[in-house]
Amino acid sequence: MEREKLFEELTVKNEKKIVLAVMDGLGGIPYRDGKTELEMAKTPNMDKLARESSCGLAIPVLYGITPGSGPAHLSLFGYDPLKYEIGRGILEALGVGMEVTEKDVAVRGNFATMENGIITDRRAGRIPTEYNRELISLLSKEIKEIDGVKIILKSGREHRFVLILRGDGLSDHVGDGDPQKEGLPQKLPEATSPEGKKTAEIAAKFVKRAEEVLKGKHPANTVLLRGFSKYPGIPSMEKIFKLRPAAIATYPMYRGLARLVGMDILDTGETIADEIDTLKKHWEQYDFFYVHIKKTDSYGEDGNFEAKVKVIEEFDSLLPEILALKPDVLVITGDHSTPSKLKAHSWHPVPFLLKSDYCFNDGLSAFNERECLRGSLGIFPAVEGMALMLANALKMEKFGA
Amino acid sequence: MEREKLFEELTVKNEKKIVLAVMDGLGGIPYRDGKTELEMAKTPNMDKLARESSCGLAIPVLYGITPGSGPAHLSLFGYDPLKYEIGRGILEALGVGMEVTEKDVAVRGNFATMENGIITDRRAGRIPTEYNRELISLLSKEIKEIDGVKIILKSGREHRFVLILRGDGLSDHVGDGDPQKEGLPQKLPEATSPEGKKTAEIAAKFVKRAEEVLKGKHPANTVLLRGFSKYPGIPSMEKIFKLRPAAIATYPMYRGLARLVGMDILDTGETIADEIDTLKKHWEQYDFFYVHIKKTDSYGEDGNFEAKVKVIEEFDSLLPEILALKPDVLVITGDHSTPSKLKAHSWHPVPFLLKSDYCFNDGLSAFNERECLRGSLGIFPAVEGMALMLANALKMEKFGA
Repeated sequence: MEREKLFEELTVKNEKKIVLAVMDGLGGIPYRDGKTELEMAKTPNMDKLARESSCGLAIPVLYGITPGSGPAHLSLFGYDPLKYEIGRGILEALGVGMEVTEKDVAVRGNFATMENGIITDRRAGRIPTEYNRELISLLSKEIKEIDGVKIILKSGREHRFVLILRGDGLSDHVGDGDPQKEGLPQKLPEATSPEGKKTAEIAAKFVKRAEEVLKGKHPANTVLLRGFSKYPGIPSMEKIFKLRPAAIATYPMYRGLARLVGMDILDTGETIADEIDTLKKHWEQYDFFYVHIKKTDSYGEDGNFEAKVKVIEEFDSLLPEILALKPDVLVITGDHSTPSKLKAHSWHPVPFLLKSDYCFNDGLSAFNERECLRGSLGIFPAVEGMALMLANALKMEKFGA
Repeated sequence: MEREKLFEELTVKNEKKIVLAVMDGLGGIPYRDGKTELEMAKTPNMDKLARESSCGLAIPVLYGITPGSGPAHLSLFGYDPLKYEIGRGILEALGVGMEVTEKDVAVRGNFATMENGIITDRRAGRIPTEYNRELISLLSKEIKEIDGVKIILKSGREHRFVLILRGDGLSDHVGDGDPQKEGLPQKLPEATSPEGKKTAEIAAKFVKRAEEVLKGKHPANTVLLRGFSKYPGIPSMEKIFKLRPAAIATYPMYRGLARLVGMDILDTGETIADEIDTLKKHWEQYDFFYVHIKKTDSYGEDGNFEAKVKVIEEFDSLLPEILALKPDVLVITGDHSTPSKLKAHSWHPVPFLLKSDYCFNDGLSAFNERECLRGSLGIFPAVEGMALMLANALKMEKFGA
């Protein structure tokens, strides 16, 4: 039986509440004094919880696969990341805080420099973000619609922007309009199948119109478009898991990912304390809360071991406030590992802790990679985590009689 | 390569004997004094065996999925429970001890109360089982056949019974003939696809004939039919694994499940000692024995921790008699967990012990959930257990050269 179908059939609504706290990029590998960030951090509250909880290590996608934020979060939300792919354009749109709908094709754009039809700089000399905003504002005013398809633009950083085409019958069967190398002629987007013909034509018209508007704006006198992608048709958490889910996240991309699976997005502040205040404020309204802590990943990517440790300690110090709400199921984990030693996302399994009235008490001495390896959940696919949360919240009926 | 095909190609017959001892609902979660039933039970024989055996924890279906007896047993017998589904009607028929064949559609029936065409009690006031038997006997006498299809009836408890339609060209594409709520009109079974037309018509005729026979038998003056299901076409253990398998079980449902995969069903008594006597008596005739102990599950479902502990201890005290037969492979496990704390089946992985001349000796100090977590089999899908049994009995050839 298909996975989604199985959950649709087995899940039931009840009043029990689940909190999924995700410290982005939580996992690490031994680095300072042979310790990981979690091993180095002073986390008395999580360590105590680890004694009473079921712990394990979650594999975001597959052994050895380093996930981006999209697939890693889909897994945690209970969706097979190999089945549901979130295209580059869509992810970029979510990242800059654009709302995407089922009618959309989202595209990554670069401002670029063209001289006599030849692309001489694919990033237009990395123009300042402020100037980018001016240009996008100009383009938005001049190009509102092409052939009945709505044109929506938003600036990213430096030379980057996102284009959303919104209309009926659009397709993502469109190849990149990007020569990939400098010194080659401008390349307009082309359909990769008959289905993509209309969309490719509109995209090509957009490039031409943009070039007219940008005339004389050297070095940003043209645009390159790539990563055409459609809104992924992910069935909602409400439909599959019968949850009323809400997301608390400070960064646009994570709010966007949560919206893709049908979560309500709660307004929140910049700090972990703000996020926990938001959790308290909306506690009665939902039965599933996704709380996202971003900075563990950011500092991991910077290679800043000490700062990542501090973020973990900050979360730990606020954990009692979450516990005071008495969630029926609490999970603390990451979406993937971001070891400071690697300064990047990695493939390493992620510490996972689940506390409920019906979990095993593993008696671990601390919450970290090494201890979680001894936990009763073993090493398991992160996508199974949602089933564990639902089971521990008694939100799943028996399969078969 | 498909799973069944792989086993068909690799398995070979030999004289080695396998015993699969299943304590139903064996697994637990910490409860009395923070211990599980297995941790609390005094099991010197299993503990000694655990030192010399390969142990692990088996996941019946998937992480977080709580299985019914059907899927849980299919897994243990080596069949993917998501591939082979046993319909509600079939399982109910097995549960009351009816034999089902490839020509059958099995249906769950309720006696119900109808007044002026409206169902006023879907359970006919839960009539006594004795009265149910009288009515079924009457119906069986009056309705032997409809349109060439044989009608076979058997009482369950209180208002429940099972109807088997036996004939050619029957289908389970038939929706429930049950208004689901009281106060609504009687609802006859209807086809859910053209394939189900004939079967639905026969079922509807059965309801009408039954109403004639039951006239004046208020409150049991009509029947509701639901859970139409066909015999699942499961390839036999003989065909796939080349075993001569036999089942020793006291409850009809487990004998029925064993028959579905082609086991011979051995007559036995009510107690574990009776079952082991049966094992001894037929030792020479088969090379695979499934021995089912029911009461661990029953007491678990009652929330009776102490009684479940006692059943485990009873089995342990009789274990030396099984060992004296010198099985080449002995597995002791459960089909799923039934923690007394939950009073229900659960999703928790099940302790699994395998002893053979070729297993690892894990040196565990006891046979229970916590110790098995440290075992050499790890946490693994229960459906893989059959391959481990066959391998340890040297009944599988090399895959590939």
